[in-house]
Amino acid sequence: MEREKYEELKQKLENDLKNKNSKSLKEIFTSIPTIDIAEALSEVKDVTYLIYIFRVIPSEYSAELFAELNSDQQELIINSFTDKQLVTLLENSFADDIVDTIEEMPANLVNRVLKVAPVDLRRDINVLLNYKENTAGSVMTTEYVCLLETTTVKNAIKELKKNGKEAETIYTIFVRDAKRTLVGTVGLDDLLFADEGQQLQEIMDVSFVTVTVNDDQEKVADMFKRYDLNAMAVVNSENKICGIITIDDVVDIIVEEATEDIALMHQTGPMDDAYLETSIFKLVKKCVPWIILLMILQVFSTLILSSFQAEIAKFAVLSVFTPLMMDASGNSGGQTTTIIIRSLALNEFKKGDVKRVFWKEFRVAVIIALIISIVSFTWLMIEMSVGIVNFENNTTINNIWLVRILIAFLVALTLFITMIASRMVGCGLPFIAKAFKRDPAVMCGPLTTTIVDIISLLSYFLLWTLVFSPILGL
Amino acid sequence: MEREKYEELKQKLENDLKNKNSKSLKEIFTSIPTIDIAEALSEVKDVTYLIYIFRVIPSEYSAELFAELNSDQQELIINSFTDKQLVTLLENSFADDIVDTIEEMPANLVNRVLKVAPVDLRRDINVLLNYKENTAGSVMTTEYVCLLETTTVKNAIKELKKNGKEAETIYTIFVRDAKRTLVGTVGLDDLLFADEGQQLQEIMDVSFVTVTVNDDQEKVADMFKRYDLNAMAVVNSENKICGIITIDDVVDIIVEEATEDIALMHQTGPMDDAYLETSIFKLVKKCVPWIILLMILQVFSTLILSSFQAEIAKFAVLSVFTPLMMDASGNSGGQTTTIIIRSLALNEFKKGDVKRVFWKEFRVAVIIALIISIVSFTWLMIEMSVGIVNFENNTTINNIWLVRILIAFLVALTLFITMIASRMVGCGLPFIAKAFKRDPAVMCGPLTTTIVDIISLLSYFLLWTLVFSPILGL
Repeated sequence: MEREKYEELKQKLENDLKNKNSKSLKEIFTSIPTIDIAEALSEVKDVTYLIYIFRVIPSEYSAELFAELNSDQQELIINSFTDKQLVTLLENSFADDIVDTIEEMPANLVNRVLKVAPVDLRRDINVLLNYKENTAGSVMTTEYVCLLETTTVKNAIKELKKNGKEAETIYTIFVRDAKRTLVGTVGLDDLLFADEGQQLQEIMDVSFVTVTVNDDQEKVADMFKRYDLNAMAVVNSENKICGIITIDDVVDIIVEEATEDIALMHQTGPMDDAYLETSIFKLVKKCVPWIILLMILQVFSTLILSSFQAEIAKFAVLSVFTPLMMDASGNSGGQTTTIIIRSLALNEFKKGDVKRVFWKEFRVAVIIALIISIVSFTWLMIEMSVGIVNFENNTTINNIWLVRILIAFLVALTLFITMIASRMVGCGLPFIAKAFKRDPAVMCGPLTTTIVDIISLLSYFLLWTLVFSPILGL
Repeated sequence: MEREKYEELKQKLENDLKNKNSKSLKEIFTSIPTIDIAEALSEVKDVTYLIYIFRVIPSEYSAELFAELNSDQQELIINSFTDKQLVTLLENSFADDIVDTIEEMPANLVNRVLKVAPVDLRRDINVLLNYKENTAGSVMTTEYVCLLETTTVKNAIKELKKNGKEAETIYTIFVRDAKRTLVGTVGLDDLLFADEGQQLQEIMDVSFVTVTVNDDQEKVADMFKRYDLNAMAVVNSENKICGIITIDDVVDIIVEEATEDIALMHQTGPMDDAYLETSIFKLVKKCVPWIILLMILQVFSTLILSSFQAEIAKFAVLSVFTPLMMDASGNSGGQTTTIIIRSLALNEFKKGDVKRVFWKEFRVAVIIALIISIVSFTWLMIEMSVGIVNFENNTTINNIWLVRILIAFLVALTLFITMIASRMVGCGLPFIAKAFKRDPAVMCGPLTTTIVDIISLLSYFLLWTLVFSPILGL
């Protein structure tokens, strides 16, 4: 919603609440999406206002509004509602929304909700609360339509008209046999296109796919992406339906998983909440361990640098180019890792593809290494010629141009080696992580940097000590 | 699909094709999702086999199969189909799928498709081809149901049964007035729940949202996420409907946008195709410019290091710790940038929030800076005590413990300064990019590193030259 519209709506709501203008309030709810209204209400802390809203607006909006309010407001409302009001609210809500709400609440409020909830709803809530986080079971809803395969189209439509409003979706109808085993799905559109007398088993789609309750939500998202589904059944080990997952929840999962991958790839723990709702302590906890870990992983480069101190003391310009080299190869490795991790996340590779990926990477690496060594040679020559890097005062050599050319060549040669190494390491680690069933997003970045740093520093200083330094007679 | 099932299916298809077993082929299509079959067929290059498949399978699967085959296969088929076969295929396909297919094809094939396409389909394809990439217009489809507001529920259902199969979805029905202006939407479920005699205007939802043809697809994805939509209308400036976008296409957009953000944040250009389908040249082109850019941005740190060569030559251990410091602050800045960019991408911040974000970041930064300086001091003392870093041979100082403590303190103090600076810079740049209407994912990472490198090197060497070196009398 645009800023001005938002401010206008907020003002209007405040006025209506102050003046108890129930007619105008009702009008707002019928003409504006509920989530926009909830946002405009987000600063309302006065519980009498909140209760008033729920009293006057049409009941079809109340459950949705409740689900979109922030958790402080939800707590206020549950605390102030009478049991009867609470029951009405719960009856209009979906079990998975209620679970999302009460998961974050103090125990006494959870108990109050469970106490007043109708018995079947209470059972649903309890089932959902007990599935492990991020499993299909934890995101599924238990309100769906499942009909016997011998039901006629006519009776199915009748049933939908009668009980369909309770279900989270009726766009996909699940079909079971007499033993309660899931045998097919029927889209509401196909039901409409079919003849009244046909049985569901004649028109149902038997090429449906399912997940089990303990499958990871990432798998759920992958299936929706792959099969363009509107809803999917979650089954137990006997292929009996336990619940369903709908596309709107999957959209949230996809966004969540992408955020998690991005966070892990940048060495911050994934955030569960929006930035401004995450506590300072939590932010510190997400970031500090990674900085410390990376610092400790640097022990190898520190060791290498330390052991070449004598060379550096003799010819300090060597140390001027180490960050440039380490960063360039770190970046290059990071690029490959990113590309490969994302391709893995999108399930782009089949089993036999690893060899093809490596062969391709190798060719890309050689070309990049060639280009970068030529560019870096030129760039270093420029830096030394225009005086950005100046080592004349710190050395006793006479032939300054020979030294410049040799130094630029040393860096270029090192970069040639490390560019190839960094891409091969950056490409290999995600596959290794995957083979060990680890999330490639977690450690591949830091490990690539560590390994590449070691390779680049060793190449640089060994080339210098064994080849270039003797040539210059240093 | 699991590996074994996939191999089994592939084998089965090959056998059926060799033996021209049309019955078995038909059976496969009715019982297995088409995308799985297309994948199992991906290595079939013999066009007579491909044509045979299209000849024997039920026509309802042919358009979907065609859309899921790879582009080489699609080209083969279009080249070999007679005009009549091509027309049948096109008639069964959705305009947006055809556009996706022909966008990548040589001009002569595009022309052939346009030539044989029925006139209304050709118009639709042309319209879609002319919208700019990544706009709502380019991803919308032109097959939808739009009915007059005075239509009765009974007639609406009749109309759906008659013409609904042509539409990409009938789960959302769009409602217009006599002037063709969009005035509401009706879910198919609500249509089913309503009385036969009611008019659409009585049951329609007037709180619907729309996008315009030129809106970015990112906006489209944001709207679907926010409003939990199944389908949304794309309108022109006069609020007349031009096409619709459905949730299955939006899922692809969301994944695409996340991939793009991840690529940009890691300094690789976004990839348009899967890794194995991207040419080596393209991969090089995506990666090389960034490495060169970063190398050139490093001119500042190179300049600083170069001007402190005399200090390094005198006391080479200084250069041992520069990569550690630069990396730690680079990582820390990168963490903030990542968190802020992702929050911006998810539209978490409202206008007044910038100040709150900065104040929060500042407090987080101070705590992290404190922890990291204490940890780094301890870690450096350990490194120097156990001999990982050893500078006794390169200096003439007697009181080695005092030197160790002072060096560890110098690094810790520098890290304290740069940790705070890096988080403030990493937090500020994305907001600045956003204010200038640039994509924060593009340049914020490299710029943060550059600025933070300058700050950390300058603090380190200035503190050394002005404070620590005099204390030690070096």
